Amino acid sequence: MVRTDPAGLRELTLDECMALLAGAPLGRIVYTDRALPAVQPVLFHLDGGAVVIRTSAGSALAAAVQDTVVAFEVDEVDARTRTGWSVTAVGHARVVDDPAETARLDLLPLRRWAPAGHERFILLRLERLTGRRIAP
Amino acid sequence: MVRTDPAGLRELTLDECMALLAGAPLGRIVYTDRALPAVQPVLFHLDGGAVVIRTSAGSALAAAVQDTVVAFEVDEVDARTRTGWSVTAVGHARVVDDPAETARLDLLPLRRWAPAGHERFILLRLERLTGRRIAP
Repeated sequence: MVRTDPAGLRELTLDECMALLAGAPLGRIVYTDRALPAVQPVLFHLDGGAVVIRTSAGSALAAAVQDTVVAFEVDEVDARTRTGWSVTAVGHARVVDDPAETARLDLLPLRRWAPAGHERFILLRLERLTGRRIAP
Repeated sequence: MVRTDPAGLRELTLDECMALLAGAPLGRIVYTDRALPAVQPVLFHLDGGAVVIRTSAGSALAAAVQDTVVAFEVDEVDARTRTGWSVTAVGHARVVDDPAETARLDLLPLRRWAPAGHERFILLRLERLTGRRIAP
């Protein structure tokens, strides 16, 4: 069944959301930084039921998201034709501390983003996944 | 002076942020929806010192952002070459109620996004503007 939201956008199924999330080259992590809304584009890798992000040990991102609920968004929109889709995941984030888990994540095909200091992993468990598509 | 953040990304000046924001075709509004982080891609228009978003009167977005502090993000990133930039604005949002102000905003070159019910404007005052660039 095709469901549309009040704005007339089509709601994506969970399978569609997973497929779009898995194929997206980059996403945006949405969190709270010193009581203010914050957002940052990041490279990521989907590992089982979690989004894996590589960051630096002392990054503001790692400090801000530790043990909090964050959102993670991917989209592909053509502003000219006003078509596209977006998928948002919400879940608990944690910074990986365990050396064995870090070593395993280090083998994932997840490239470095910024030039310096990327040596910590953030895991975001996918607890809620929603998406919408705008068709012409 | 070129400033870099701890991850080695170059911090953009206010002028650079404004120019990139003005030229971006679409952005993402970041807010809190029933105590959870939320994010949604939106078309927008820069009107003086405010981001203008067209939405529907009864939208969850309009209800959630009314009189709250939200973030607004634009970016352009090439995941393959790992180059690009992102700019984030933070400020107070309000839903426009005044008919005269609505009529004025209705004349802006801001197109409808979803197919149905777009008849309310959200204004986000630019109170804090930051950006970063990742160069090869």
